[in-house]
Amino acid sequence: MSYVYLLDTTLRDGTQGEGVSLTVADKLKIAEKLDDLGVAYIEGGFPGANPKDEEFFRAAKSLHLKHAKLTAFGSTRRPGVRVEDDASVRAVLDASTPVVAIVGKAWDFHVTEALRIDLDENLAMIRDTVQYLKQHGREVIFDAEHFFDGFKRNRAYALATVRAAWEAGVDWVALCDTNGGSMPHEIHEMVTQVIQEVPVQVGIHTHNDCELAVANSLAAVQAGARMVHGTINGIGERCGNANLASIIPNLELKLGYPCLPSRDHLRLLTPVARFVGEVCNLVAHSYQPFVGHSAFAHKGGIHVSAIQRDPETYEHIPPELVGNERRVLLSELSGVSNVLAQAQAFGIPTEGRETELRRLLERIKQMEHMGYQFEGAEASQELLFRRVLNDFTPPFKVLAVRVDTDVQRQGEATSQAIIKLEVDGEIVHTVSEGNGPVNALDAVLRKALAPHRPEIRRMHLTDYKVRVLDEKDATAARVRVLIESTDGEHVWRTVGVSENVIAASWEALVDSIQYYLALVVPSQALVEA
Amino acid sequence: MSYVYLLDTTLRDGTQGEGVSLTVADKLKIAEKLDDLGVAYIEGGFPGANPKDEEFFRAAKSLHLKHAKLTAFGSTRRPGVRVEDDASVRAVLDASTPVVAIVGKAWDFHVTEALRIDLDENLAMIRDTVQYLKQHGREVIFDAEHFFDGFKRNRAYALATVRAAWEAGVDWVALCDTNGGSMPHEIHEMVTQVIQEVPVQVGIHTHNDCELAVANSLAAVQAGARMVHGTINGIGERCGNANLASIIPNLELKLGYPCLPSRDHLRLLTPVARFVGEVCNLVAHSYQPFVGHSAFAHKGGIHVSAIQRDPETYEHIPPELVGNERRVLLSELSGVSNVLAQAQAFGIPTEGRETELRRLLERIKQMEHMGYQFEGAEASQELLFRRVLNDFTPPFKVLAVRVDTDVQRQGEATSQAIIKLEVDGEIVHTVSEGNGPVNALDAVLRKALAPHRPEIRRMHLTDYKVRVLDEKDATAARVRVLIESTDGEHVWRTVGVSENVIAASWEALVDSIQYYLALVVPSQALVEA
Repeated sequence: MSYVYLLDTTLRDGTQGEGVSLTVADKLKIAEKLDDLGVAYIEGGFPGANPKDEEFFRAAKSLHLKHAKLTAFGSTRRPGVRVEDDASVRAVLDASTPVVAIVGKAWDFHVTEALRIDLDENLAMIRDTVQYLKQHGREVIFDAEHFFDGFKRNRAYALATVRAAWEAGVDWVALCDTNGGSMPHEIHEMVTQVIQEVPVQVGIHTHNDCELAVANSLAAVQAGARMVHGTINGIGERCGNANLASIIPNLELKLGYPCLPSRDHLRLLTPVARFVGEVCNLVAHSYQPFVGHSAFAHKGGIHVSAIQRDPETYEHIPPELVGNERRVLLSELSGVSNVLAQAQAFGIPTEGRETELRRLLERIKQMEHMGYQFEGAEASQELLFRRVLNDFTPPFKVLAVRVDTDVQRQGEATSQAIIKLEVDGEIVHTVSEGNGPVNALDAVLRKALAPHRPEIRRMHLTDYKVRVLDEKDATAARVRVLIESTDGEHVWRTVGVSENVIAASWEALVDSIQYYLALVVPSQALVEA
Repeated sequence: MSYVYLLDTTLRDGTQGEGVSLTVADKLKIAEKLDDLGVAYIEGGFPGANPKDEEFFRAAKSLHLKHAKLTAFGSTRRPGVRVEDDASVRAVLDASTPVVAIVGKAWDFHVTEALRIDLDENLAMIRDTVQYLKQHGREVIFDAEHFFDGFKRNRAYALATVRAAWEAGVDWVALCDTNGGSMPHEIHEMVTQVIQEVPVQVGIHTHNDCELAVANSLAAVQAGARMVHGTINGIGERCGNANLASIIPNLELKLGYPCLPSRDHLRLLTPVARFVGEVCNLVAHSYQPFVGHSAFAHKGGIHVSAIQRDPETYEHIPPELVGNERRVLLSELSGVSNVLAQAQAFGIPTEGRETELRRLLERIKQMEHMGYQFEGAEASQELLFRRVLNDFTPPFKVLAVRVDTDVQRQGEATSQAIIKLEVDGEIVHTVSEGNGPVNALDAVLRKALAPHRPEIRRMHLTDYKVRVLDEKDATAARVRVLIESTDGEHVWRTVGVSENVIAASWEALVDSIQYYLALVVPSQALVEA
């Protein structure tokens, strides 16, 4: 089957979603992941409208993309202005991307009512802009805004806009269901007609207002469209854009249209979707198709025993194909064999310790019930194993911890942390300050330990995340803190849970530093010796 | 067009969803709401498998349903057992519902591999069970499990199961896409063939594993199915069932198939969907189609000015039709037109205040750059507007704030907050404690204000979220805190941003309480007067 080209617009249309706000650094990280996944085009922003996007395109020049072509989004020239004098068209060129997408009106009602111009002037705007961008060597996509709504009201005019773009030499015309109100059978019918009337390469751009964006995109491909616009996890304005995290596996696995460089790339789908969800702070619904935590979760009973006999009984695809995994709820953690295998992986002696391993398993279940999560906090997990199995000597003991915070003006405060530790048999009582309570704790812990364990200067924290559990308990809810640390060579992650954010942070902080001093440094010494 | 009968299975298949657990009281409340909405059938549970469901059907006898027929779910008789001796079939009859749905196998692979019985015995099980239930005066629905997967592998056998049910006198055969792996064009084709082959009334039951459950349900209706199974908000096992909250408006408004008693009932869709989300503790995604908080929220500057001229420009349906409402968002992408529209919506005078509005817009952009986010924090947004446009008298002034935290054992700590306020010209100096620093701040603020503004006892915080911005700066990063509050009648949300989590929380907390005292309470007083 012929290849379908994916245009990911997470960084442009996706940021129109409520609650989505990305820094330039976020956007660069996402662009790299999208390129790893293997999408054909990455629409990075709207440089004419947003200075932050201009900054993104400047910074993006240093990216080394393997698969994707960076695409700048803009608009047709304004009415009554020569294209070479249009600031927005200039901004799109200044982004220096190989590909440019420009949006223009395809619905006569918008031309006469929103723009309040002549129908012919709109066609000229499309033609001039496409021609000009082609003259400047760009691959050009024309986004025909409201194409389907326009086609239903004035078929001839909607087609005229497509034809104008084509005659001007456009590479692709993306037909947009801007308001997300169309039905799959309508999309199929209208795309078929466009392809019959104009010999241009057609793309599809849909929104999810009827919960049909995925179906509409597939219907368009089945009618002959060969470019699909969408966003990871379907983020975007109102109900979102078409969700590439579902479209990709449907095209690859169900309909037989390749859209990634190889089938192996499909395995990156779940990690990439979760990464984007984290960065956008819109954590994917656990029941999101293909990539959700529950997408291949089976809840007890008949399903589970059938699944164990043959996964095909209750699974439409093997979860590994999209980088996800099967989960059997309730019974999942009940195996001592899992704990045993993990202890052995840490190099902890397990011979004849059945009872202790069962106790450890109970402790893990209890902690997970409290909100701990050891996926992504392997250092805390290893410390827990070693502590319960008596295979750990803490490099210091905490005797007392206190943090005081004075709030000055709105949003400004200073914190002071005081700790009392026992290190090498000596009592250390130290104070330090920071711009926040956790920052102060980090500072005071280093200050207290540095004279005794100078190697602590080689490590630092690189990531700090807070998640409120049981959000409905408001300020009395428990919080989970995840900390990532590095010494430039190793990276490790720790977790803390408490009703008190400072206590949770302190727990993760102490784990991080104890892990480094007790487990990373000695093994390095061993290597150096 | 002919009527489409809705079977809501939120209370049965919906409860298979991960994290969904309903009490009998919850189920009764949901059943009443579903009846208000006007669905034709409410599938209440699986009495043979779940004692809680038997209790539900006993209690449900006291419900006075206006539209819906209560339906009990069961299974065909077990192999090698006479139907009158089957405990599960008895349990379904004992539920005393006018309608019974029984599931049976339609895929030969499941008959021979999962049940490990003869293909003919499976047909006899279907026939016997339908006949027996019909003899007991029930309306009977046969759920043909895995029908579409079965049809693809062994068309003749899948059709034979449908024919067996029909010959036994079944009222409906619901064709199930149990694993959720089918494509809309396949569903359309197979439903068409069933209808050509067997003159039975056909229903459709789909799952959302490919993000196509809504499209698959609509495709089946277009092929002639006249019953649709689904759940409110699409809750259910793995990726969920077909979402009735989207299917209903698509059938009523887009495809012209009536499925509710009247068009007026459609206005209950949003409140019912939100009610179900609350009770199931699976709060609907804000961007859920039709019923989500963001479903008719507009963010882009061009969109907003067009919407103000004519909503049809960027809305596929008027939101009131489904009981939802339009919202205009502010963001970095917005122009002065958004700010003006928003100020007017708040009832703040705007005549001749162009300069101030521009200043306000600059301030918003600056704050958003710092990490503020006013979407989902409309109360802080309104306070900001009123503060900048000099339309606000704060109900108290903050003079000093201090929080001390002592960490005891791992994960445990107590916090003490001390504040100095000016209220009604008086200085109030108060101390209080809490299990966390923010909890202590909340407590001390209420304690300080209660003697002066006793109405504060009527409000409380219902949600508290923390998001670390610039995570890579680790503990020195800025954090954004979002707080939701209610007085049982109104709900409002506020935001705070700082490098110090306590300062950010304090800011959101003060906004919440100032908003309540200055804007919610006075407007209530006005209504009561």
